[in-house]
Amino acid sequence: MDTAHQLNPTWISYPGDFELWLHREVSLRRDERLSIVPPFWRLDTHCSNVKFRKWVDLIQDEQVTCDVEGRYNIAINDRFVYGNPKSFTIPAGRHLIMISVIAETIVPAIYLEGQSFVSDSSWEVSTNNHVWLPAATLNYHTPLDKPSGYRLATKPIFPIAAERLNSLTKEESSQLIDFGKETFGYVRLHQITGYGKVCLYYGESREEALSRDFCETYDEVILDETILENEPAASTDPKDRIFTIPNSRAFRYVQIVSVGEVQYGEVSALYEYLPVKYRGHFRCSDDRINEIWDTSLYTLHLTTREFFLDGIKRDRWVWSGDACQSFLMNYYSFFDNDVCRRTFIALRGKDPVETHINHILDYSFYWILALQDYYLHTGDLSFVKDCYPKIVSLLQFCIERTNDSGFMEGLPDDWIFVDWGEMDNRGEVCFEQILFCRSLNVASDFATLFHDNENASSFRVRAQQLHESILHVFWDEKAGGLVHSRHDGKLSSHITKYANMFALSYGYFNEHQAELVKQNIMLNDAVQPIVTPYMRFYELASLCEIGETDFVTSEIQRYWGGMLDLGATSFWETFDPTQSGDQHYAMYGRPFGKSLCHSWGASPLYILGKYYLGVRPLTPGYETYVIEPKLGGLSWIEGAVPVPSGDIHVFANSHEINIQTVSGIGTLRFQSSVIPISSDGQIVDKGAGQYELMLSPHNSYNIRYTLG
Amino acid sequence: MDTAHQLNPTWISYPGDFELWLHREVSLRRDERLSIVPPFWRLDTHCSNVKFRKWVDLIQDEQVTCDVEGRYNIAINDRFVYGNPKSFTIPAGRHLIMISVIAETIVPAIYLEGQSFVSDSSWEVSTNNHVWLPAATLNYHTPLDKPSGYRLATKPIFPIAAERLNSLTKEESSQLIDFGKETFGYVRLHQITGYGKVCLYYGESREEALSRDFCETYDEVILDETILENEPAASTDPKDRIFTIPNSRAFRYVQIVSVGEVQYGEVSALYEYLPVKYRGHFRCSDDRINEIWDTSLYTLHLTTREFFLDGIKRDRWVWSGDACQSFLMNYYSFFDNDVCRRTFIALRGKDPVETHINHILDYSFYWILALQDYYLHTGDLSFVKDCYPKIVSLLQFCIERTNDSGFMEGLPDDWIFVDWGEMDNRGEVCFEQILFCRSLNVASDFATLFHDNENASSFRVRAQQLHESILHVFWDEKAGGLVHSRHDGKLSSHITKYANMFALSYGYFNEHQAELVKQNIMLNDAVQPIVTPYMRFYELASLCEIGETDFVTSEIQRYWGGMLDLGATSFWETFDPTQSGDQHYAMYGRPFGKSLCHSWGASPLYILGKYYLGVRPLTPGYETYVIEPKLGGLSWIEGAVPVPSGDIHVFANSHEINIQTVSGIGTLRFQSSVIPISSDGQIVDKGAGQYELMLSPHNSYNIRYTLG
Repeated sequence: MDTAHQLNPTWISYPGDFELWLHREVSLRRDERLSIVPPFWRLDTHCSNVKFRKWVDLIQDEQVTCDVEGRYNIAINDRFVYGNPKSFTIPAGRHLIMISVIAETIVPAIYLEGQSFVSDSSWEVSTNNHVWLPAATLNYHTPLDKPSGYRLATKPIFPIAAERLNSLTKEESSQLIDFGKETFGYVRLHQITGYGKVCLYYGESREEALSRDFCETYDEVILDETILENEPAASTDPKDRIFTIPNSRAFRYVQIVSVGEVQYGEVSALYEYLPVKYRGHFRCSDDRINEIWDTSLYTLHLTTREFFLDGIKRDRWVWSGDACQSFLMNYYSFFDNDVCRRTFIALRGKDPVETHINHILDYSFYWILALQDYYLHTGDLSFVKDCYPKIVSLLQFCIERTNDSGFMEGLPDDWIFVDWGEMDNRGEVCFEQILFCRSLNVASDFATLFHDNENASSFRVRAQQLHESILHVFWDEKAGGLVHSRHDGKLSSHITKYANMFALSYGYFNEHQAELVKQNIMLNDAVQPIVTPYMRFYELASLCEIGETDFVTSEIQRYWGGMLDLGATSFWETFDPTQSGDQHYAMYGRPFGKSLCHSWGASPLYILGKYYLGVRPLTPGYETYVIEPKLGGLSWIEGAVPVPSGDIHVFANSHEINIQTVSGIGTLRFQSSVIPISSDGQIVDKGAGQYELMLSPHNSYNIRYTLG
Repeated sequence: MDTAHQLNPTWISYPGDFELWLHREVSLRRDERLSIVPPFWRLDTHCSNVKFRKWVDLIQDEQVTCDVEGRYNIAINDRFVYGNPKSFTIPAGRHLIMISVIAETIVPAIYLEGQSFVSDSSWEVSTNNHVWLPAATLNYHTPLDKPSGYRLATKPIFPIAAERLNSLTKEESSQLIDFGKETFGYVRLHQITGYGKVCLYYGESREEALSRDFCETYDEVILDETILENEPAASTDPKDRIFTIPNSRAFRYVQIVSVGEVQYGEVSALYEYLPVKYRGHFRCSDDRINEIWDTSLYTLHLTTREFFLDGIKRDRWVWSGDACQSFLMNYYSFFDNDVCRRTFIALRGKDPVETHINHILDYSFYWILALQDYYLHTGDLSFVKDCYPKIVSLLQFCIERTNDSGFMEGLPDDWIFVDWGEMDNRGEVCFEQILFCRSLNVASDFATLFHDNENASSFRVRAQQLHESILHVFWDEKAGGLVHSRHDGKLSSHITKYANMFALSYGYFNEHQAELVKQNIMLNDAVQPIVTPYMRFYELASLCEIGETDFVTSEIQRYWGGMLDLGATSFWETFDPTQSGDQHYAMYGRPFGKSLCHSWGASPLYILGKYYLGVRPLTPGYETYVIEPKLGGLSWIEGAVPVPSGDIHVFANSHEINIQTVSGIGTLRFQSSVIPISSDGQIVDKGAGQYELMLSPHNSYNIRYTLG
């Protein structure tokens, strides 16, 4: 039996409900010039009618206190405790406690404290569908700390400059505030006197904040007695009165226009952020690269919030393809599993599957592939197991939509995204088949893991057939790669990098084909270049995998450095170095439509961690892993890569490698033109100048070698 | 093009959403001694994220006004009308108007008025799943008349007696108010002075209202300045102050206890009801039967509300088996299609099907069977077509749960209800197979109607096989009927009426079997009697069908008359004539647990309309119908039966039949010992004293005959 000192009461709810509810709340915060923009996909949320139950066996009568989010009743052995008291007594003996909770706008949740039992994961919960699951424990451990009160952390920040602007009319006065860098949060006005209207025009760029007519977001507030007195930070002295704009916004600049008699003094903001640990770390001999890494980390942190968001100004939505990359960057920076799990649950929503995730064919596959990455990096099998039925139902949905050749095409209203760029995505797009095939492989492996033999076999067989069909249909020996698509039975002559680089990463080519693809596609300037950081992510990864780190270093310097040269303080949704001036801000036919803080812009975090520091898991949760440092033309690199049990430290220059390990068995791989020496362990000569050193847990290594 | 005078603007929403939302609201109004009792099934509700769209082609610019329930945006050709004005201009030409609406606690709905177009069923609506449906038009035709404000009608009613009670303490004073008959609504206190607490203990019986500890429902109100001033009916003169209890309750009696300085004068109530037309009508030579018919009508009206409820005091929920009978009674009384449709939608909820309707195996089938009844009586094919996909998915759910013999058994957590009564419902219950078989027949017919040939054939084949299996397994030639069940391969020796009477009605027996069942089961006192009005409904119908109307008349007099003798002003959930005193009020182990106003208690409405007046449809919507009056031992009967085009009037005594028809082609069937004469048309002699007269539309007939 439990004893009191082991009890850890927590708010509990139906598994996944909190995440779905939070996703709905967050997804509905997008607006465009005060027009709310709800997502164009189904927004699933929590179940409003749930039951919690637990059998208790009490030695003596117990007084129980109970806090509930929602309307509720309490039943002991199917008899109501009338009046729903906050505190009630359960007599000694064995009893079934059942608490029914109804809540539509918040998540049904309970918090209970008895003497020998409390609300925790030993409770079961049901959505009244005959299925009882272990309750999800929410990270809220006091009755007053309610799940519906979920808020990110905030801290005050202050502008670096303010500039008085010419007023457009006599009644208004306006100024431009600069917070020095891209940020996110709530603008505050201090020392308010008088009443009147205040308008705030936000800008990720100075130009945007100055454009009252075209800035993507703005706020209008009528400041009067009612509003100011309800402000939590209100002071009795009007001169100390602070007003916090209720909407969170992304901005570096804000143009503030006040109309009427209202006056204010200082302007500040509450920076809103997810508290994460900065575990990943990277430094090298090149300051430009270091600045790129820092800016990437800041970009990722700004977009790593309740969920992995795409960008913070415009969409503020959760997109599977974007998140797929945030997951990977997270494994080389924050290693925050919670935000990963929240994102997986939010993206997938509930059954029945009616459309692809985010309505995008590729995005259904990314969800499955990202789960494989998650499992590999975190080793969190239990979460993947919870997701497994939804992997199967999503894949079944896909399989039902295959054509006679076993390929997936875009059906009416499906969006075949691939990437922003010139391409014809009608018919059978090779890239989609590669992702489909990989998803089947992954699902088959998971099925095996969870003893679902029927699906394990059917997914594997389908993946094999699909793999063969892809090479049979799309491989162009003369061009030395996969063509982009087949439409109405006619093969396209268009060659793009997308399918080729993914197939290369997944090992779908034989040696001969792989070599052709490297030379004819990946390193061929004549092939249509990739212009978004989104697909540059995979492209640079792919180039690293074929040993082109030196080239990748110069690409990072050129492409991400190019944004820094234009004053970027966070990385952008797209960047075309050939554009100039305000052109950089436009997208979707709107002058400031482009997101200047987009998660997929932060990919150097992943590239530098995985391919330069060279740390990557071989088996789930880094039980075994490899370290293969690459200087990529830099004089030295050093940094830390977070893994479940701690942080692995790596330093490398052309003649020395230092490693600090945590748990797990590692393998250091490196090339040397001389016979290397290690401070510990036995270096193995693999021939052709390749060496390996087995790394034991919690150890330090110093290796002397000569890069050759 | 539309012209202004044809325009009929209305609030529009996603089809079914309003009904699901209303069902949630209504289902959550159940409480038991202030403990909320949410339904123990999944409560589906509206989709919170929907889009409305319409292409318009305007000759000139149009000013459009727009009212929305929810947060929303307006886009014209995919460009937002920023700021969501209540009024905006659409330029001349062809444009796509799209309105996105988000609403969690109410139903997303819009109301639009332009010059050449308005919100109506020509709009399309989607839940962001790629499927666009014609918008549902709600019966709300002004901007201020919002769907979320849905309320039933109310009217003041007044008690017939008040009785001062002895106070339990010095601080309180109490009285018992009697409204003279079962009613439903909101109690009101008039001429309030002073502040204090008022407790109201409701009773369907005097005994219940007097039992503060065991009455099923009560209210406690603290009357203070805040409360009284917010009361809509508040007057400036405190002496005219009225307070209306915010909860609607079922009661005839209410014990009012006031504590503290509060005093009140008059007590009244707002009777809450669904405005329906009293179309069906019945009178006969027996006043007792007339009183039973009136009380049945009142019982049905009290339970016919937002939906067909089971009872008004306790559950106030929508139950498929109960509703199945309310539908049929409605066809012989109010003929209100709207409440039928609301009930069908509410019961079925959304896919995926996770459990049987109301968690009861039989109740899934009743939903399908009731749709067949609905179609036959109303001819409303369009609604049935909307429901058809959900018929299929519900039946698929059932089919997946059949055992190796093709039978359905109760799986863990399924409730096999059949009826309140002694029976062992483990294993394969014959009654359930009969309903399953009939459901397959009905679904097959619908599939044919909607050109779904695959399901038409598979359902038909399965029904055929099941029919054969039922007779093969459950028919007991010696007993002359179907046995109750088979459990663990062992046939029960228990014979009950349920399966037999349904199989008889559905024509599942051959002539020989039917005759055996009539004699050995239906008319055999040794077979376990049916004690609920619920199954008495089918039993009496079945007896009428085998010509036992005289016996049915005496049964109605005895059973329903028995309740009247005990002072019933509405009919009960169960009635056991052998009980006495307070025993009649107890159920579920609670002294006043029984519902004294239960829809299934009103079945004489159906029996007397269908089998005495004898009016019933032969083809959907009464395009063809039959009238077969039966006196059932009474001297005369007369009444009206509502059909889609009006009311059919029937009078009959032993020597005269008068008929007034509306649309449709009818057939009058009757027996005569002399050659009958009709005022119009040609009577056909069918032999053996049977005669038929074809009835033309909108005609009157007087037939002279002699009942023989």
